[in-house]
Amino acid sequence: MGGDATLNVTANRLPGPVLPPMFSRYKEWVERELTGAVPSPPQSPIYSVLRYHLGWVDRHGGPVKEPVSQGKALRPTLCLFACQALGGDPAQAAPAAAALELIHNFSLLHDDIQDRDLERRHQATAWSVWGEPKALVAGDAMQAVGDLALLAGARHQVPAGTTLRVSAILTESYLEMIEGQCLDLDFESRTAITTQDYLHMIACKTGALIRCALEVGATLGGNDPRAAQVFARFGQCLGRVFQIRDDFLGIWGDPVATGKAVGNDIRRRKKSFPVVFGLEHATRPARKELLRVYRQEQLSEEDVDQVLALLEAAGAPRMSQQLTQDNADQAILELEGLSLPSWARVEAEQLVDFLARRQF
Amino acid sequence: MGGDATLNVTANRLPGPVLPPMFSRYKEWVERELTGAVPSPPQSPIYSVLRYHLGWVDRHGGPVKEPVSQGKALRPTLCLFACQALGGDPAQAAPAAAALELIHNFSLLHDDIQDRDLERRHQATAWSVWGEPKALVAGDAMQAVGDLALLAGARHQVPAGTTLRVSAILTESYLEMIEGQCLDLDFESRTAITTQDYLHMIACKTGALIRCALEVGATLGGNDPRAAQVFARFGQCLGRVFQIRDDFLGIWGDPVATGKAVGNDIRRRKKSFPVVFGLEHATRPARKELLRVYRQEQLSEEDVDQVLALLEAAGAPRMSQQLTQDNADQAILELEGLSLPSWARVEAEQLVDFLARRQF
Repeated sequence: MGGDATLNVTANRLPGPVLPPMFSRYKEWVERELTGAVPSPPQSPIYSVLRYHLGWVDRHGGPVKEPVSQGKALRPTLCLFACQALGGDPAQAAPAAAALELIHNFSLLHDDIQDRDLERRHQATAWSVWGEPKALVAGDAMQAVGDLALLAGARHQVPAGTTLRVSAILTESYLEMIEGQCLDLDFESRTAITTQDYLHMIACKTGALIRCALEVGATLGGNDPRAAQVFARFGQCLGRVFQIRDDFLGIWGDPVATGKAVGNDIRRRKKSFPVVFGLEHATRPARKELLRVYRQEQLSEEDVDQVLALLEAAGAPRMSQQLTQDNADQAILELEGLSLPSWARVEAEQLVDFLARRQF
Repeated sequence: MGGDATLNVTANRLPGPVLPPMFSRYKEWVERELTGAVPSPPQSPIYSVLRYHLGWVDRHGGPVKEPVSQGKALRPTLCLFACQALGGDPAQAAPAAAALELIHNFSLLHDDIQDRDLERRHQATAWSVWGEPKALVAGDAMQAVGDLALLAGARHQVPAGTTLRVSAILTESYLEMIEGQCLDLDFESRTAITTQDYLHMIACKTGALIRCALEVGATLGGNDPRAAQVFARFGQCLGRVFQIRDDFLGIWGDPVATGKAVGNDIRRRKKSFPVVFGLEHATRPARKELLRVYRQEQLSEEDVDQVLALLEAAGAPRMSQQLTQDNADQAILELEGLSLPSWARVEAEQLVDFLARRQF
């Protein structure tokens, strides 16, 4: 079983799919809207921290060589895609798309404080540069700037009632995300976490905002609440695909693609899906050993290797990939009941395939 | 001058005005709306922290003897008053009133983390009970719950366009409050703060939400943008009255009424208005001495007494009271251009007088 899993792991490393074209198609919309949404430092020194965190300036407010370190802008892209797939004008969804990215970044700013992470997207985290109180306030500001970006939707002739509905969907979703952060914090001090507990936690922490991106985009793109619900369910599946793939890459990702060593999440004692599954399905002695290693403050490289071997023996990598693929298949099924133009169906499949097999 | 100021200080202690009747009139509205807005723990463990912070339950989720330790609910009261003064139905403003109280409490949860305060409203602060990460998340949740409370305004037949406008006013105001928190953090490491700098900081940190309460209440109470602007300016003055009186009480308040020893804010090395004014207007040797004392990590009781004497010699208590009174007078003037029922005018005067002379 171990050998089988290892084969799977290796096979899964190469070749990785490229970023689907929809990401570059919407990139300019997203960047323009984001740039307009975040105020400049003269209004308050706090905006230097926001702009630094978004990768636009260095810590002194100076220009950066590659201001594209903002990641894939997954959530805005999903939002604009859902809008356009239903025949809407992406311009009407652009404010909501920017809001999603800002709310996501608000959660990252606060997450980095909680996890005491020193690096994010190849640069020092905000709290490690400005201290915790300033980074905390910067996160709060990012959230408010996000909400305001969405309310600016009125500029694009979105009816007030629609903006209000979208605002409620966004706020409810990020409250669910916050509930997920709380569950995640509780997991740190618990060992008895079932895969069900874990799937519920990620459905909140990661899934809610991804589902929201698609539901909001669909709401702004069409006038059909049923279509918005279909996109929401599509998003729920995508959230699981995204996070479980993320968990896989955090352990078995190609170091060249992820920029992180193999076993990185184990070294950080993260209770990601493979570990939760491993604890649930390992043999009794293997489980005992896993718990012993994870109870230590610091893990040696031998500890990491041992956990890797135990997880593979328990079938964790294969099961992670299986669960990713099941949710990818389910995502595609969800869209079937909807009448979509063929370009949108092709792109939805590219998107699902990318999220399920991505290397970065 | 010192003796004069001391006289003023003593004269200002007694008798204190009682809480104006509008507070008890709106109390039930506010409590009902707040109770409905905050979810129960079964939805997520985070809500235990919110309910504890609001003074509804003890740290184990059990009942509290006096669940009224939530403070005066100043902001909701201001909001409902402005609405009713302009002939509106307070029921329509109740969701916004609850939102204001929740947003205020979100800022308190995060402030307590930043200031490492151990006690708030006679109970241990949330971070000191649950740790910092959980309290941080609880603050984020409080903010989202506040935003959702406002969006629930649709329940009360508020038109979507009005709810949207009010939502934008609230979000812009709490972004301004957050900018104020950032300025306040910057002040900690600066000595050269002018009274102008200070007044700008409190206009943001405290003033924005108080102004917002009145502007939002007025917007929901009438259909007259000019009246809403008048109430906003009234609120700007009230914000200064409230905070400068707060600063005065933090140093010279009656320990029986405030529950804190004389000189409490000095012991905490807070750069409140009297201290900023003292640093600006003291004689050169007095200024040097003030700076020397404030540079220490911990202040002795002799240090506190010395600062008290230096501030009185610089005329800081008298100037604090003067500035409070000037803004109270200006607040009343602002309302003069508006046609209000006589009960509202009388109550506005009671309110201003209470905020300017309160002992708690």
